[in-house]
Amino acid sequence: MLITSSSNERIKHARRVREGRERDLIFVEGERLVGECISSGLRLHACFTATEVSAVQTKLLEGIPCPVFQLAETVLESLGDTMTTQGIIVIAERPFPALDQLFAAESPLVLGLDRVQDPGNLGTLIRTAEAAGANGLFAFAGSADAYSPKTLRSSMGSAFRLPLMTDVSGLGAIETCRNRGLKAVAATGEAALSHYDYDWRQPTFLILGNEGRGASAEIMNACDARVRIPLHPPVESLNVAAAGAAILFEAVRQRS
Amino acid sequence: MLITSSSNERIKHARRVREGRERDLIFVEGERLVGECISSGLRLHACFTATEVSAVQTKLLEGIPCPVFQLAETVLESLGDTMTTQGIIVIAERPFPALDQLFAAESPLVLGLDRVQDPGNLGTLIRTAEAAGANGLFAFAGSADAYSPKTLRSSMGSAFRLPLMTDVSGLGAIETCRNRGLKAVAATGEAALSHYDYDWRQPTFLILGNEGRGASAEIMNACDARVRIPLHPPVESLNVAAAGAAILFEAVRQRS
Repeated sequence: MLITSSSNERIKHARRVREGRERDLIFVEGERLVGECISSGLRLHACFTATEVSAVQTKLLEGIPCPVFQLAETVLESLGDTMTTQGIIVIAERPFPALDQLFAAESPLVLGLDRVQDPGNLGTLIRTAEAAGANGLFAFAGSADAYSPKTLRSSMGSAFRLPLMTDVSGLGAIETCRNRGLKAVAATGEAALSHYDYDWRQPTFLILGNEGRGASAEIMNACDARVRIPLHPPVESLNVAAAGAAILFEAVRQRS
Repeated sequence: MLITSSSNERIKHARRVREGRERDLIFVEGERLVGECISSGLRLHACFTATEVSAVQTKLLEGIPCPVFQLAETVLESLGDTMTTQGIIVIAERPFPALDQLFAAESPLVLGLDRVQDPGNLGTLIRTAEAAGANGLFAFAGSADAYSPKTLRSSMGSAFRLPLMTDVSGLGAIETCRNRGLKAVAATGEAALSHYDYDWRQPTFLILGNEGRGASAEIMNACDARVRIPLHPPVESLNVAAAGAAILFEAVRQRS
């Protein structure tokens, strides 16, 4: 099926998905990310390609369980989120994991993000968390959209697989984790305890805060412990995704 | 001195600095970054502010060792690199560190970046390297501009202080480091040795590669060792700034 008009209803709908205005659907662009999306088993609603498809795309499209639409060049350009369109776009249902999935491990390691604002940081943290074997992630209300095109690109497919709970109350998430036997630990420059000296083998809910201000005082007070990454002066803080990587891979070290 | 025209020669010159077309000068924007620039002792050429300055800016301007120009609103907007101009801009001489500075420590830890393309990643790595007590950084030819406004913002001032050698040959940097007694170690998903099992206390030149392709085969072959960060499948790689944080803070742990 060929679509030649940017005002086609399907295209207008897909554009709304791209802008995050259809909460239950996600906009996935580019060969690599579409491949990850298909293999992660998310339910697909529609696929859009150029009128000519690459060999990689032909392979992706084999047996794809949704209608495929070919778009005239200007239509594809009007739909793409990136500067240079990547030739293939999928509209899929966003995953809504069951809470139990985050606590299925013997000693769960769950990440909590208190208003991390930058989609690149959020996506990188999702990718790093999955790579470190974390069991899931809570993005507290006020964080960037975990399924926006930019976050998805940074997460490199991990957002399709790692159980994510979004728009949750931070205090509620701490309570939920505590009820499951996890200790809540916030990372902050003000803590006395180094993250090297914390025992990450126990069931843990690690909380990282906003880029500029860290976690809120309310969240900090509700935690069971606070840890800091020892930094050489005059540096006072790390980028939040770098801090997450440093702590999560210290946890991996202790747990292996 | 008030400047009311965007085609004023000083403004045109400052715009060239912003675009990276004046190799010896850097464009520093925003209160926080300008403050770091002043306190790092870089030589300042000019400062531009709005016609009304904030209390923080008044403090920064006290005894600032360069001419200060007030800009009409439209002129300031034409000069700012960010969407919302931050009201204060400084043109400074970029630092050209002496090679010896990178090897002044008893057991130097130096970072090498082989064509890291994203200014955000590069800036984050500069910030993380300084925070981890690294002694300097080589950005191989083909890397992003270490002093572009975007890199400076991500580095949060660390680019003013950490000795950086830019546009260098990667093989040349390995040779230089080896002559000073450092071992060159590349991070790659293909290595057999885990980064936890490497001895980071020895004088080390840690090399991280391009976002998509890693370090080149040529660089990889020239290294004394290769290490990998153990990742949970199906994740195959980390963001390069996250990988840098994980490895550098493992080095900090072993060295402390």
